[in-house]
Amino acid sequence: MNTPFHKQEPDFFIQGILNGDVASLSRAITLVESQNEDHQALAQQILERLLPRTGRSFRLGITGVPGVGKSTFIESFGKVVMDKGHKLAVLAVDPSSAKSKGSILGDKTRMEALSTQKGVYIRPSPSSGVLGGVTRGSFETILLCEAAGYDFIIVETVGVGQSELAVSKITDFFLLLMLSGAGDELQGIKRGIMEMADALMITKADGSNLNKAKTARAEYAHAMHLLQEPESGWPAYTEVCSSVTGLGISEMYERLMNYKQFVNANGYFLKKRTEQQYDLFVNAFEEQLKQSFYAMPGIQEKMAAIKDQSFAGPIQPFTLAKKLLADFLKNRPV
Amino acid sequence: MNTPFHKQEPDFFIQGILNGDVASLSRAITLVESQNEDHQALAQQILERLLPRTGRSFRLGITGVPGVGKSTFIESFGKVVMDKGHKLAVLAVDPSSAKSKGSILGDKTRMEALSTQKGVYIRPSPSSGVLGGVTRGSFETILLCEAAGYDFIIVETVGVGQSELAVSKITDFFLLLMLSGAGDELQGIKRGIMEMADALMITKADGSNLNKAKTARAEYAHAMHLLQEPESGWPAYTEVCSSVTGLGISEMYERLMNYKQFVNANGYFLKKRTEQQYDLFVNAFEEQLKQSFYAMPGIQEKMAAIKDQSFAGPIQPFTLAKKLLADFLKNRPV
Repeated sequence: MNTPFHKQEPDFFIQGILNGDVASLSRAITLVESQNEDHQALAQQILERLLPRTGRSFRLGITGVPGVGKSTFIESFGKVVMDKGHKLAVLAVDPSSAKSKGSILGDKTRMEALSTQKGVYIRPSPSSGVLGGVTRGSFETILLCEAAGYDFIIVETVGVGQSELAVSKITDFFLLLMLSGAGDELQGIKRGIMEMADALMITKADGSNLNKAKTARAEYAHAMHLLQEPESGWPAYTEVCSSVTGLGISEMYERLMNYKQFVNANGYFLKKRTEQQYDLFVNAFEEQLKQSFYAMPGIQEKMAAIKDQSFAGPIQPFTLAKKLLADFLKNRPV
Repeated sequence: MNTPFHKQEPDFFIQGILNGDVASLSRAITLVESQNEDHQALAQQILERLLPRTGRSFRLGITGVPGVGKSTFIESFGKVVMDKGHKLAVLAVDPSSAKSKGSILGDKTRMEALSTQKGVYIRPSPSSGVLGGVTRGSFETILLCEAAGYDFIIVETVGVGQSELAVSKITDFFLLLMLSGAGDELQGIKRGIMEMADALMITKADGSNLNKAKTARAEYAHAMHLLQEPESGWPAYTEVCSSVTGLGISEMYERLMNYKQFVNANGYFLKKRTEQQYDLFVNAFEEQLKQSFYAMPGIQEKMAAIKDQSFAGPIQPFTLAKKLLADFLKNRPV
């Protein structure tokens, strides 16, 4: 009988990933995303040993509201990236079904042209419904892809919510895709998202829509100009693009490479990458701290008793928490 | 000289809030949202004493992409709520500027008609850029508003990201506003968001847009039908509405009251409210656990050393975290 993959030794995965084996990579990502403690422990061993082999990719975050054309943009931009000789991984950070833990509707049919290319890895990552889960799982997934030899990584996220902040933290460059004429031009988009963006692209700039897109570009460029100077020192730019005509697509690649040179030279690239590594440690610590509490003997019973109490009427959450913390520190696990 | 408000005793706030004083309420919310430890401690004392006076409102969560018309919907729906004799609080959960901590563009001019009414409290709550921050601060803000006598609370959130999950957890009813014809009708909207929704309203159903909205309604109603039965046992409904003509707006209020009766009768209302209370405790505990670690003597130096190390090259985040946790449990604060 075969050993199930989650019972394998770390070496089983590490060798596979370093050899560029896609099945090993996918299985390791599954471990990273798992809530199971044994899977987590195995994932951490794999990751720690692979860390020296990571970091050698350009990490591009892409966001935009549903309907802006993210998938088609990634299809046409991905082709440019491939033509430049990169191995490309596309990770979708998907605040998908929190209830049924399912994947998004129609996901299988997306990016069809790209998914059939050699050297492209596409992975939808359903988030676990836990706030913060996006960051951790996704960053570790980036690292695994890098160890497997992918040197251009696109992290796609949806909507105008908190996942943007998470994605901008784990990538090198954050691209905001926008529609022209989708309502209140400047009021609709949140300043916070615009501040995070290293570039803003108006999509679907073709046919009768081209002029509208150019007008929108001018308006957004003005709005971006009013925002605070980005920490990278590289001024964000605003452009129009079309996945149909190819307008602005290959220029985007050149801009990214210019950006990379610029932030390499001024030290911002190293600074940001270092902070990302440190954040991984801080998240790991805070996670372990919580786990050590929930693993304490008798804690499940105590929590259940407090739950019962809260059914009976108002409780004092902060006072109860303080008491429980005192207990934990007294009866700490060794 | 006057004592600054954050140096006052809890009673100062509690009396004001119970008397319906808006300034006291606003100041207490500012404490709840503050990152400062002293402010937090004061906020917790205020909240704990007010908890027995909370819970007597209907809490409505509203979401939708930018441009869907949330503000105008809330303006016209808010008027219906007021006419029914409620005191209304509108809280905006705003994943706003994570960098400059500023508020959203154009915020001051929003909901002008509503904000001048007596008995309406409007509060934009810029989130702190910390994942999870949305839930805690916002839930506590709801509780404070309830203690101040507001018996209908609207929590507005933006986008299709993770803040939806947070808002659906702290409200009784979750309303998703949608545009008709904003691109890929069914692919654009995430299944996860639809699963959370207790109702879906197609906005701007007026003039030449009315028929398009009705078609979209039929499509979404079908899609909703395919989703898993909601835990409340109340089937989600899909309708069209117009803030211009008033179509569907006052019917919405009737539906909400029917919903309330229904979930009161089957016990779901109590169950959800209890879980919310318990979650407040769990969040409080996990927050205190972290704080007790960061308050440990010498910890800042240890963290700084690890940061330096991560500048020098790859670190082993999980192993380092394990070591630090062992240290913490050995040298625990008493």
